[in-house]
Amino acid sequence: MIKVGILGVGTVGTSVANILKKNRDIISARAGVEIVPVIGSVRSLDKKRDVDIELTDNSMDIIDSDVDIIVELIGGVEEPYILVSKALESGKSVVTANKALLAYHRYELQEKAGDLPLFYEASVAGGIPIIGALRNGLSANHIESIVGILNGTCNYMLTKMIKEGVSYGDVLKEAQELGYAEADPTFDVGGFDAAHKLLILASIAYGIDAKPEDILIEGIDNISQTDVDFAKEFGYEIKLLGVAKRRENGVELRVHATMVKDTHPIAKVDGVMNAVSVVGDSVGQTMFYGPGAGGDATASAVIADIIEIARGNKGPMLGYKRGLEGEALKLLETDEIESKYYLKLKVTDEPGVLASVTSALSKERISISSILQKESKVENRVRLLLTTHRCKERDIKAAINSLKALDCVGDNISFIRIEE
Amino acid sequence: MIKVGILGVGTVGTSVANILKKNRDIISARAGVEIVPVIGSVRSLDKKRDVDIELTDNSMDIIDSDVDIIVELIGGVEEPYILVSKALESGKSVVTANKALLAYHRYELQEKAGDLPLFYEASVAGGIPIIGALRNGLSANHIESIVGILNGTCNYMLTKMIKEGVSYGDVLKEAQELGYAEADPTFDVGGFDAAHKLLILASIAYGIDAKPEDILIEGIDNISQTDVDFAKEFGYEIKLLGVAKRRENGVELRVHATMVKDTHPIAKVDGVMNAVSVVGDSVGQTMFYGPGAGGDATASAVIADIIEIARGNKGPMLGYKRGLEGEALKLLETDEIESKYYLKLKVTDEPGVLASVTSALSKERISISSILQKESKVENRVRLLLTTHRCKERDIKAAINSLKALDCVGDNISFIRIEE
Repeated sequence: MIKVGILGVGTVGTSVANILKKNRDIISARAGVEIVPVIGSVRSLDKKRDVDIELTDNSMDIIDSDVDIIVELIGGVEEPYILVSKALESGKSVVTANKALLAYHRYELQEKAGDLPLFYEASVAGGIPIIGALRNGLSANHIESIVGILNGTCNYMLTKMIKEGVSYGDVLKEAQELGYAEADPTFDVGGFDAAHKLLILASIAYGIDAKPEDILIEGIDNISQTDVDFAKEFGYEIKLLGVAKRRENGVELRVHATMVKDTHPIAKVDGVMNAVSVVGDSVGQTMFYGPGAGGDATASAVIADIIEIARGNKGPMLGYKRGLEGEALKLLETDEIESKYYLKLKVTDEPGVLASVTSALSKERISISSILQKESKVENRVRLLLTTHRCKERDIKAAINSLKALDCVGDNISFIRIEE
Repeated sequence: MIKVGILGVGTVGTSVANILKKNRDIISARAGVEIVPVIGSVRSLDKKRDVDIELTDNSMDIIDSDVDIIVELIGGVEEPYILVSKALESGKSVVTANKALLAYHRYELQEKAGDLPLFYEASVAGGIPIIGALRNGLSANHIESIVGILNGTCNYMLTKMIKEGVSYGDVLKEAQELGYAEADPTFDVGGFDAAHKLLILASIAYGIDAKPEDILIEGIDNISQTDVDFAKEFGYEIKLLGVAKRRENGVELRVHATMVKDTHPIAKVDGVMNAVSVVGDSVGQTMFYGPGAGGDATASAVIADIIEIARGNKGPMLGYKRGLEGEALKLLETDEIESKYYLKLKVTDEPGVLASVTSALSKERISISSILQKESKVENRVRLLLTTHRCKERDIKAAINSLKALDCVGDNISFIRIEE
């Protein structure tokens, strides 16, 4: 019998304890041994929980108990880091769903774990077994790119905005009422949640030890109705994507709202669902789709890890049994990012403006792919929407500064990166 | 160093040998050890191969060599069964991409393998790591259903028929010219290839020991332009699906052309791509998408298995460390299948016909969901297309017999099952 202790019996922890009981028949047959949840910790013992395991409000009771595997579902960074470290020091295997913990401390934890399993399938894209796919199923590949819808809240909001024309403000309010978004939605809509997950995937794919503050993170709060209309007209969806791309001299890691051509498999993923598209040099294009959140879906991934530990399978935690021997890929600076771009300008409606704009762009080596001029509500102003061919982030920023310097162009220039 | 021998150096075998060399950097870092292909067998030594490993035309040279892992890529059933058995007897781990071998002998091979790894990620859906997903990532779930596009040739043909209106005969010819279909296409278009793969998935999900002759296998050769037109009009795609469904008293396993509502994620999978949708009781709906064939994509899965063996991970081969203790699910008879159905009849164009048809159906407890009457080229005849609510295969067959007995209905009644 394998005993499990749960740090943080909230929604997911309750699901873990209950599914371990409900599906005991199939879980024990697959693991080869009974797996029994015995103890869990909660912040307050007063609140009623729908589980029949022993509860404590002292996390150390879990660490000091005789359980074999500790499941960490507290959230946050430093408290779980201390507790997971103590669990590993006491010889216990650990399963965590905590993306923030891993975004900051995955390499230290790998070090501390040594030969002990420390698994985290639930930390990225909830119930989708993307960690296993990347660490095991696609391990023969140099990963060319990972493009993921890693935050269901943002995808729900963007789907509503595109498909139903609901405004950003209204859909945020609705998402908050439905419980998809927090009262302070920054962590989701600002792209930080997706960034934590992207960093975990980037370690397995590329061995990159980066932290959230090292990479480009933008959210979806700048998406306007004009952008949505343009996307529809030109055959794009708008998605908040985590993007990892291998280039000759390093790897791009970035999270931002993205226009995605509607023929890309990931463009078809709507609502709260998550999906991760992975391109490998041997396998080609793959995609993994499923629920990115929810108690039972997340518990499905947590328990899969527990079963793997029970079976005696060990990882390696971050996908590499040994280092890349000096070949680890370096993280590229934001300026080095290469993408196609959608630009939105306001210009005065007079002869020669288009020539000034295109000439300013061409001076910065930006080549235009498509262009759309629309009437504006303001007299003598028109909106100019255009897309570029592939270019460097540094150059598009320089070009935007050149455009702002033109008298005929308004200061408020925005852009969205395009994925084809 | 781990030495690999390859039984059958054809397209996939050549890719395996070459990718092991080309991606040696990342493969050895992930596996923790160098993995080197050293010997391979071919039918004829005269044909030039694009690999630089030792070649032999005697399979036993591979078995008797000092390799640690044997990769079986011969195809067929009995010859590889003997060779894989001998490899296991001589203490070698085995990786196979051979779905036919596993469709017939997976349980005997599991027995023979004992504690030795015998892995087969490449046998189902090529480069998609669906075996790992089902065996490990979703192991906490009772699997409610598996619905898979498991044959790229059929999906290519059906996509062309639906999207471009190409006839079955023309698209088959084109698929043969492109090398997607064999001169004798029966194995693909008859559903047998998909059935082999479905049986492998059904073992991992349900522990079911069935053989191809035990399950319903139909192909795509009966799909007419009328069916395609109806599908378009009513918002369906037509796909050849492998379907496994858990019901209260057992499991349905079946392969057949299927009308799939175009909102289902699998309906959006076009061309030669494969996809497998898995619904679990904890995780909900997931889908795995990628290339189902091709040398490099298949080799990606073969090498992933080799890396898992090098890492010391062991399985269990068919997903269960121990039996289900009398709870193994039984295979349901074909008559017990439950589905919605699309029916195509020719009826005489006269008063009372619709009443006769609907009354015949209702006597067999078949309830109609939608109905479409179309003019026919033959005078005094009309085509009646209808869909039913969920009913048993036994009842729809009885209903079809009742309809045939009516004077106003033509003998040639066809049906397609519907997945929603």
